[in-house]
Amino acid sequence: MSTIADVAARAGVSKATASRALSGGGYVSAATRERVQAAARELAYVAHSSATSLATGRTLSVGVIVPNLGRWFFSELLAGVQEGLFTAGYDMVLYGLQEGTAERERLFGQVLPRRRFDGIIAAGIQPRADERERLGAFDSPVVTVGAGGEDTGVVSIDDAAAARIATEHLIDLGHTDIVFLGGRADAAMRAIGDDRRLDGYRAAMSAAALDSGIRHAEGEPSMTGGYDAAVRVLGDRKNRPTAFVAVCDEAAIGGIIAARRLGISVPAELSVVGIDDHEHAEMFALTTVRQLPRQQGLKAVELLRLRMTEPERAPDHVVMPSELVVRSSTTAPR
Amino acid sequence: MSTIADVAARAGVSKATASRALSGGGYVSAATRERVQAAARELAYVAHSSATSLATGRTLSVGVIVPNLGRWFFSELLAGVQEGLFTAGYDMVLYGLQEGTAERERLFGQVLPRRRFDGIIAAGIQPRADERERLGAFDSPVVTVGAGGEDTGVVSIDDAAAARIATEHLIDLGHTDIVFLGGRADAAMRAIGDDRRLDGYRAAMSAAALDSGIRHAEGEPSMTGGYDAAVRVLGDRKNRPTAFVAVCDEAAIGGIIAARRLGISVPAELSVVGIDDHEHAEMFALTTVRQLPRQQGLKAVELLRLRMTEPERAPDHVVMPSELVVRSSTTAPR
Repeated sequence: MSTIADVAARAGVSKATASRALSGGGYVSAATRERVQAAARELAYVAHSSATSLATGRTLSVGVIVPNLGRWFFSELLAGVQEGLFTAGYDMVLYGLQEGTAERERLFGQVLPRRRFDGIIAAGIQPRADERERLGAFDSPVVTVGAGGEDTGVVSIDDAAAARIATEHLIDLGHTDIVFLGGRADAAMRAIGDDRRLDGYRAAMSAAALDSGIRHAEGEPSMTGGYDAAVRVLGDRKNRPTAFVAVCDEAAIGGIIAARRLGISVPAELSVVGIDDHEHAEMFALTTVRQLPRQQGLKAVELLRLRMTEPERAPDHVVMPSELVVRSSTTAPR
Repeated sequence: MSTIADVAARAGVSKATASRALSGGGYVSAATRERVQAAARELAYVAHSSATSLATGRTLSVGVIVPNLGRWFFSELLAGVQEGLFTAGYDMVLYGLQEGTAERERLFGQVLPRRRFDGIIAAGIQPRADERERLGAFDSPVVTVGAGGEDTGVVSIDDAAAARIATEHLIDLGHTDIVFLGGRADAAMRAIGDDRRLDGYRAAMSAAALDSGIRHAEGEPSMTGGYDAAVRVLGDRKNRPTAFVAVCDEAAIGGIIAARRLGISVPAELSVVGIDDHEHAEMFALTTVRQLPRQQGLKAVELLRLRMTEPERAPDHVVMPSELVVRSSTTAPR
C-alpha cells in the first residue's frame, strides 16, 4: 500500500503539503492540490484515518447517542442522521443508552472523553448540567434532538402544540371525556417530549374548561404500553372515556387493538388520535399529528456541519413543522 | 491536559512502556502496569484515541453494517451488538445500507478501505465475492449474521428449519391449503434468511405430498407488506387458504389485521403462524417460532473477540436455537 511519502515524492512536494492537499485542511494552491490528487489517484493511495486525524485534528467521525433503537421515532431519526453523515463523508459512532442504567455514567464519564469527535448528536436525552459541561469540554459542537440546552443546537417539533392540536380536534368533534394514553407515571423518567405532550393535552383541556376531566392513563410509550393502559381504562365500564389522545402512534395503535379485543368499535364508540404518523398509522386508519423524524435527523446533521464550519456561530434552535392528518379513527361521540 | 510523556516520567518508565501498560497491548510486568496506571490516575490522563491507535495498531472500534434499522430483527440485533461492544470497551461505527442503492458500492469501495477497524460485523447482507475480498484485505476479522461466507464467522438460526417447523405445525393440525405470506418476489432481492424460510416451507409441503398446494404470496417482510399480501390472497374467496406461514412475525401480524378487517376469524377460519417471537407477538396471540436476535448480537461480538485474540482460529459458525411457541392464532381447520 502506498504511503503519503510516496504521494509526496511523486507530486514533488513535502509530506506536509501532500497531507494538507488531500485532507482539505490549511492552504495549498489549486495547482499543487491537483498535482497531489493526481499522484494519489495514480498510486491508489488511501488515507489511514488515524494518521489523517493526528495530522489534521479532524476525525471525520460524529458520536451519536440515542436511548432506544426499538422505538420507531429513533430508528427513523437514526436513518436520517446516518444518511446525512454518510453523504457528508462522516462516520457515525453510535451509542445506545438505556435510561436508568450505569451505561450513562460510563458513557459521559469515561467513553466520550477518550474519543475525539468532530461533533456529537444526542437524541431524546436531556443531558444534565455536569454532562453538558463534559460535552462542552470536548470542544466540538453538540446538537440535540427533542431535548435541548441553551449551549447546544436543537432540532425538535413543538411537542406541546402537537398534543394540543390533537386534543382540540377531539374537543371540536364534541368530546369532553378524553384520556391521555401512555407516557410514564414518574415525570423524572418520562422522556422530555412525552412530558411536553402531556402538558399540551392539559392546556387544551383547561382552555375548554374541561380541567375536571383530565386523566392520564400511564404506560410505556409503545404499542404494548398503550394496549395495557387502554385495557385498564376501557375495562372500567362506568368510567369509559369517549376518546384517547395518545402520547405517540404506537400507544394509539395499542389502544385501537385493545378496543377491538374488547368489542368496542373505533371510531363509533371510541375515537383515537395519535402523534407521529408512524409507518403503520395508515393501516390502522389512525388520525394523527404528523412529524417527520427522518427529516429531523437530516436537519441535525445540517446544524452540526454549520457549527463545524463556523465555530463562533450561536447554536440554532429549529422547530420542525407538524400537522394534523385526519383519517377515520376519530368522529363525533354518540 | 497531561500527555503520555508526563505519565511515563512520573512512573519512571519509557513512553513506549507506559503506552503498552495502558493499552493492554504487549508485555509489561504487573508491577510496572500498576505503577503506570497509578500515575495515569494521579495525572487524570486520558488517552487520545487517534494517538493510541497509531501506537498500538488497535482502533478499539468495530464497523457494523445493517440493512434496515426499521425492522424489528435488526434493531434488536443491533441492541445486542451495541451492548456487547460497549461492555468490551469498543466503539460501534454503524453503517446503514439500503439494498440496491449506490451506498453499497461507496461503502465497500471507498469508505471501509479508508477506515481501520479491529473487526467488522455485517448483518443480513450477503457480501459478494469481490466485497469479501475487500473485507479480507482489511486484515481484521469479520463476523456475519444471517448470511455467511466460509471465510467469515457466522451467527444465524437455521431459517429453513424454522419455516419447516412452522409449516409442519399447521400440517399436523390438519391444514393442507397453506400459503407462505411475505418475502420478495425476486429471489435476488430477497434477504438470504427469507429465501431459506421459503425453502423450508416448500420442503415441508413436499414431504407431506402437498406440492400442488405450494403458494407464495409475495410482499415486503413487514407489517404493511403482510397486510397487503393477505388482502390480495383473502380477497379471492374461491381460493382462500385455511392457513398462513408468514416469513416473519411482522408479516404475520399484518395478515391477522387484514383478516380482521375482512371479517375473517382467526384462528376459526384462518390459522396464522409466524417466525421471530416479535415483541408484539403475544399481544396478537401469535403462534410463532422464536428466535432471539439480541442474543445473536451478543454472540456475534463474542465470536469477533475470539478471532481478535486468536487470529489463526478458523471462523466459527454458530447456529442459534429456535423453538415453536404455540399461542392461539392456530387451530385445526373447520
